[in-house]
Order: sequence, then structure tokens, then C-alpha cells
Amino acid sequence: MRVKIGGHISRRFNQDLEKLRTATLEMGGLVERQIHNAICSLDQSNSQLATEVEAFDDRVNQFERKIEEQCTHIIVKRQPAANDLRMVLSVARIVRDLERMGDEAVKIAKLGLISSELGGSPTGHAETREIATLVSNMLSYSLDAFARYDATRAKDVIMLDEEVDAKYANVLTKLTDFMSKDASSVKKIINLIWALRSLERVGDHAKNICGQVVYIVDGRHID
Amino acid sequence: MRVKIGGHISRRFNQDLEKLRTATLEMGGLVERQIHNAICSLDQSNSQLATEVEAFDDRVNQFERKIEEQCTHIIVKRQPAANDLRMVLSVARIVRDLERMGDEAVKIAKLGLISSELGGSPTGHAETREIATLVSNMLSYSLDAFARYDATRAKDVIMLDEEVDAKYANVLTKLTDFMSKDASSVKKIINLIWALRSLERVGDHAKNICGQVVYIVDGRHID
Repeated sequence: MRVKIGGHISRRFNQDLEKLRTATLEMGGLVERQIHNAICSLDQSNSQLATEVEAFDDRVNQFERKIEEQCTHIIVKRQPAANDLRMVLSVARIVRDLERMGDEAVKIAKLGLISSELGGSPTGHAETREIATLVSNMLSYSLDAFARYDATRAKDVIMLDEEVDAKYANVLTKLTDFMSKDASSVKKIINLIWALRSLERVGDHAKNICGQVVYIVDGRHID
Repeated sequence: MRVKIGGHISRRFNQDLEKLRTATLEMGGLVERQIHNAICSLDQSNSQLATEVEAFDDRVNQFERKIEEQCTHIIVKRQPAANDLRMVLSVARIVRDLERMGDEAVKIAKLGLISSELGGSPTGHAETREIATLVSNMLSYSLDAFARYDATRAKDVIMLDEEVDAKYANVLTKLTDFMSKDASSVKKIINLIWALRSLERVGDHAKNICGQVVYIVDGRHID
């Protein structure tokens, strides 16, 4: 199900909404790159990529502020009706989720650096890669769903989050069992657990974004 | 620094804003009770309290929806000017943080139940109580700051979060060191670590609420 937003008499209003959408997608692209680099830096212990992730954080934060201001401006100047207001308020929530994904990327990159000092975890790499791929896809699909106001695609992403949660629970059990038998692995594994936790949260934020897309299109909240 | 919101010609608008504030504080009271019970259930392995925390979750979620709808209604019907819009949008963000604190309370209560089955962690109790007290205070003060639109108090709470973060980092190091020497403690300690993580996030949400109070009063964002 798709919906067309912005069939307004005021051309300026349409332009405002279009600008908002474009800026959000641009911010989403930055966060996608941050997450990608954070995952590579974790996987390859690449400190240059980790530094780039941190450097991007300021830009992402500035984007959030700018888009929030645009939202307030549109509400005050254009006094949108309920339907359009829903879209504007949802964008304000989406950029918050994007900004928090950026924060998780920074955490993952830092954990990558610590892991290159400590030595990597003796187990859990295949599962981490799998989860990393899943949540990267979730982010990418959630931006697609937003770009097209595609509630069907958004709901697919929301389903994917259950897969992430199940895989995350499984690998946590595996890692905890490993530590219970080998105390010397604790520090390395705990470090990986924090990275996994951040990845899982990236999935949660992608799910939130898709919840907002469904809300824009269908006008109802998804729990 | 305090500010008076709602000196409007329209009496209805003033009433709307007042209703919004009252509902938010009422929701805050529910979440306070949830957090309190969750902490007690963790500390005393009390399964009845844990069940109450879960039962409250629905009411908290309903509150969030209701207040969000009130916000949308006010924006559409009253078309507030920038200053009042800021207040309405901030309330929408505050209730999101409150709702997420409720989610953390549910997680803490569940961990309390697991801990009563597994047996408690052999270490870290004093620190956990200290952090629990700190974040409960942060929540309570953040609601006070919102009730009075008191930016000074809000900034004090934001400072408290640094104390929570430092204590949290210290206890994590202590717990990780303990596990590194005693593999048999891993499962019990990991369980406590998850509870601490949730407590720390409650502090983050209280800090977010205070950031919104500062934004309502001073009109500028705090990072």
C-alpha cells in the first residue's frame, strides 16, 4: 500500500514536504555509511574507519537539528491539516531514531578499537556477521519504505526484527555458556556482547522508523 | 529560571495546555511507581511486584497514545505559535521517554525473577542499590523540573547523569574482573549487568526529559 503525500494547493507547502523527505533520506544515507563503517571496523579492527565513524557523528547531529527546525517551521508557517501534520511529526521521530543509530555506530566503532587491543572474542564471529548484515538491511529497507511511503515493505522490516532478536538471544546464550567454562575469555567476550547489543538496538531503531512509515500511510500505530 | 507557559487569550487553549501537563505528570507518576517496584523486585526477588510492573505497562502505553493524540489535536485545532508549539512537541518527546522507562522497568522486573531462580550475583549489590537510588531520584527530579518548568533543576539532573555513568562504568569493570576470576559466577553476574544496563538507560531517559524542559524554557537544545 502506498500513499501520495502533498497534493496541496500551496506549491510552497509541497516543496517544504519534499525538502523534508530529501533531507531525511540524505541523513539516512550518512547513518547507513556510519553503520557500515562501524561494522567493518569491528570486523577488521580498522582504526581509520572507527575514526571516520566518530567524525560523521557531528554531521548526523547537525542534520537532526536542521530537520527538526524544518518540521517546526512547517507546522508554524503552513499550519498543516491532520494528515500532513502526521507526516511532519513522524519525520521528527524518524530523525531521532536515525541520530540514535549514529550513536550506536560510534559505540560499535569504539568497541572495535578496544577489541583490536584486547584481541577478538574466541567465538561468536559468524553470528555477529549475520546479525550485522540483517540490521544493515533493516536500515536500508526502512529508508526505502520511507522514501516510497510503502507500508507493506515497512511491515516486512518489522518482521525482520523478530529474526534479529531471536539470533541475538541465541548468540548471547552461546557466549555466556562459553564464558562460564573459560574465565580467561570474559573480557573479550563482554566486549563483543556490547557490540551485539548495539547492533540489536540499530535493528530496534529501524523497526521504529518502519512503525512511523506505517503510521504515515495507514494513520495507525503499530506496537 | 522559570517560565510561565500559556498566557493566552483563548481560555480553551490554556486549558488544553494544562490538561497536557497534568496527564504527563500523571503518566510520570505511574512510571515512577513502575521503576520503584522493578527495583524492589530486583533487590528482594519479589515476583508479585514483578507481575505488577508488567501489568502497569499497558496503562503506561495507553497514556502515551492518549497524550500524543492530545498533542496532535492541540496543534491542528489551536495552531499554536512557535513558543507554545515548542512546549507541545516537547511533551510528545517526554512521554516517549517515559514510555521507554516503563519498558526498562519491565526488563528489570523480569531480570529480578530470573535472579530469584538463578540465585543472585555474588557481588555488586551495594553499587546496584546506589545506582538505583540515583536514577529513581533523577526521574523524580525530572518530573519536578517539568511540573515547574524549572530549567535550573533540569540542568542539575543532567549533571547527575554523569555520576550515574561513572558509577555504572566502575561497577561493570568490577563485575567483569570478578567473572574473569570465577567462571562459575558468569550467569548470575551477566543477569545483574543487564539490570544495571536498564537502570543506566532510565537515567538517560530522565536526562532526555530534562533536556526537553530546558528546551521549553530556554528555547535551545542541550547535547
